[in-house]
Amino acid sequence: MARIVMKFGGTSMAGTERIRRVARIVQGQQAAGHEVAVVVSAMAGETDRLVNFCREADPLHDPAEYDVVVAAGEQVTSGLLAMHLQALGSKARSWLGWQLPVRTDDAHAKARIDSIDSDALIASMQAGEIAVIPGFQGLTEDNRVTTLGRGGSDTSAVAVAAAIGADRCDIYTDVDGVYTTDPRIVSKAQKLKAVTYEEMLELASVGSKVLQTRSVSLAMKENVRVQVLSSFIDDDAPAADTIPGTMIVSDEELEGLDMERQLITGIAADKNEAKVTLTRIADRPGAVATIFGPLADANINVDMIIQNIAKDKGETDVTFTVPAADLARTQALLEERKEQIGYYRLICDSKVAKISVVGVGMKSHAGVAATMFKALADRGINIQAISTSEIKVSVLIEDDYTELAVRVLHSAYGLDAKDAA
Amino acid sequence: MARIVMKFGGTSMAGTERIRRVARIVQGQQAAGHEVAVVVSAMAGETDRLVNFCREADPLHDPAEYDVVVAAGEQVTSGLLAMHLQALGSKARSWLGWQLPVRTDDAHAKARIDSIDSDALIASMQAGEIAVIPGFQGLTEDNRVTTLGRGGSDTSAVAVAAAIGADRCDIYTDVDGVYTTDPRIVSKAQKLKAVTYEEMLELASVGSKVLQTRSVSLAMKENVRVQVLSSFIDDDAPAADTIPGTMIVSDEELEGLDMERQLITGIAADKNEAKVTLTRIADRPGAVATIFGPLADANINVDMIIQNIAKDKGETDVTFTVPAADLARTQALLEERKEQIGYYRLICDSKVAKISVVGVGMKSHAGVAATMFKALADRGINIQAISTSEIKVSVLIEDDYTELAVRVLHSAYGLDAKDAA
Repeated sequence: MARIVMKFGGTSMAGTERIRRVARIVQGQQAAGHEVAVVVSAMAGETDRLVNFCREADPLHDPAEYDVVVAAGEQVTSGLLAMHLQALGSKARSWLGWQLPVRTDDAHAKARIDSIDSDALIASMQAGEIAVIPGFQGLTEDNRVTTLGRGGSDTSAVAVAAAIGADRCDIYTDVDGVYTTDPRIVSKAQKLKAVTYEEMLELASVGSKVLQTRSVSLAMKENVRVQVLSSFIDDDAPAADTIPGTMIVSDEELEGLDMERQLITGIAADKNEAKVTLTRIADRPGAVATIFGPLADANINVDMIIQNIAKDKGETDVTFTVPAADLARTQALLEERKEQIGYYRLICDSKVAKISVVGVGMKSHAGVAATMFKALADRGINIQAISTSEIKVSVLIEDDYTELAVRVLHSAYGLDAKDAA
Repeated sequence: MARIVMKFGGTSMAGTERIRRVARIVQGQQAAGHEVAVVVSAMAGETDRLVNFCREADPLHDPAEYDVVVAAGEQVTSGLLAMHLQALGSKARSWLGWQLPVRTDDAHAKARIDSIDSDALIASMQAGEIAVIPGFQGLTEDNRVTTLGRGGSDTSAVAVAAAIGADRCDIYTDVDGVYTTDPRIVSKAQKLKAVTYEEMLELASVGSKVLQTRSVSLAMKENVRVQVLSSFIDDDAPAADTIPGTMIVSDEELEGLDMERQLITGIAADKNEAKVTLTRIADRPGAVATIFGPLADANINVDMIIQNIAKDKGETDVTFTVPAADLARTQALLEERKEQIGYYRLICDSKVAKISVVGVGMKSHAGVAATMFKALADRGINIQAISTSEIKVSVLIEDDYTELAVRVLHSAYGLDAKDAA
């Protein structure tokens, strides 16, 4: 017998038939002898509908009231799933965010979980009752409703799993696991049996949106074993144990699984970055701070930064990337400060893509990078910038080459499935 | 300065434009110097949508989970109205049923309010904040969500008014007051300036569905002055004081208003009754109990009961009315007990209507009844049964004559407006 948390997203909860299907999957786990808590999202489209009402009410709407409005979506699905489970003969009840409660800070619309009171929850589960918990919801110290930000239900599920000491947190999505790359781009992409938290974070932050990044960070911090699997594979709702999903675990546990490790775990692409170059900046201490200080103050997240040594006359060029959505603000901020920073030209380019190869098995960046650069050069793909982290090498290229680059690298690192077309 | 509660129904809350309109009306009251609490329903159609999901989930759904699901509708509109008020520059916040809390019994889906903690509410209102309260919602002692039954927001509004000692509870509806009869039937119907709680109860219970009956009973018990008025009269959202609605008050207060009292206040019609006759029942003690005991046990609400003295052979006929929706169950129950009750024939008729004349000014039933019977007889309308209460005379007629009977009586008691067509 294990204690497990199961989480179902909006697509799985969209309408009566799908919720009934979820109820059968959940009941299958209980029938297998497990204690089960389920975390649910709102029906697909419902949160958008509610957010839209808020925008129409007041473009600068009060985030505290926004939370009251949008939390209603998960309240509905949690009550409905409890009913569906009862209709199948299980004991079940809903536990709203304020009932547990899920305590958060008071950063409305993007709250962070402080703690979850789990005593009543555990007692109920031990008595054979399936606990149905709306994701996304929390409660401040002065009893106002909070929400965790879009996609927050993944984080709710991991937090509940940590609070009740669950053996596993199963995240059901509309994909059946984490792949070596996006299967829509590379038909030979392979599903991974397991990845580490660190790898998942890198894959998520560079465009593989299977899980919300915050939920992976929390799982890593609380050492919660997360499994990604599909709620759409089988009409007969088998127990989740029999569906091979992807486990997201610690480095140590991954080694214990004794699998044949690849050098590289996956390839990710992200087209939502834009490149900014400032030319002929004075190569003196503090110059760079005058660029990035104002961007940090404006909450613009700068990713890659490349500065070459001065070419001549004590001047240099600086290139960096920002989210494409922040490009206009970045441009305005830098133009305002042209005198102060002292650059010659400001060049912006949103037609770029960041391609990353990720893997904890990456012993030496040099070897990985060399393979990468050669593979891309062989196809005539020009590298505009390079950055590395502990378990990742990223390059910036022209975005028209995105799919080609991903396919080329997927082959170059030996990730192509042998039996696929 | 007064302290007032304003209540808006689902039609008034249906969509962004209408909620904005409600916000302007509410702000108008605050601008007039009043302390304001607002009670809101879910958007028109939303509760039906949620109830339907519950029925699809489980025909015998758990009423505790039903309450979790349907309470979400009012949660959404309360948050949205608070935002709209803020957008107009007012201070406002939502207070959900569990936040106040509105304490109820644990009769889920039809809970009754025990108490409302009003300290925080009053403090917030005194600080100039408009309190927005979702109607319909409550909380049991063990912190489960309850709802008060369909139409329960009227009751929530009156209960809040009683709890905060409001000077007035304004119920905004899609009609602009209480009329001498249904204006769709009688074009000369007049809006009443004021009626007593008792009159309103009789008018409501016989088909004039302006207010939920329970809300009127509660207002009478707690002596809350209720005003019915329209949220659709004027595009420029004048202060409610300037819109002539109908006040619902105690007998004493009505006398204080020093208006010219009519003998009869209004005429109501109800087509939702069915007539049941049992023939040739033994005229002995206890015989009637064998009929009505089982109906009471089955929660079937019997209204008029007519039994004449025995004609011959110690036998008599008994006629009574039940809600048309309960006719099939009533018939089944009585057929099962044919031996035990000992009747000859069971005759059911759902093609009947109950026409009632209501008025606290009714000094003698005889005079009122005589006028009624003569007016109906003059038009050839046959009276099938008669019943009276303190302030009401009701007759049962064939339902095809409903509108004719209402028009005839409206004229007979001098209620026709002089300036109307």
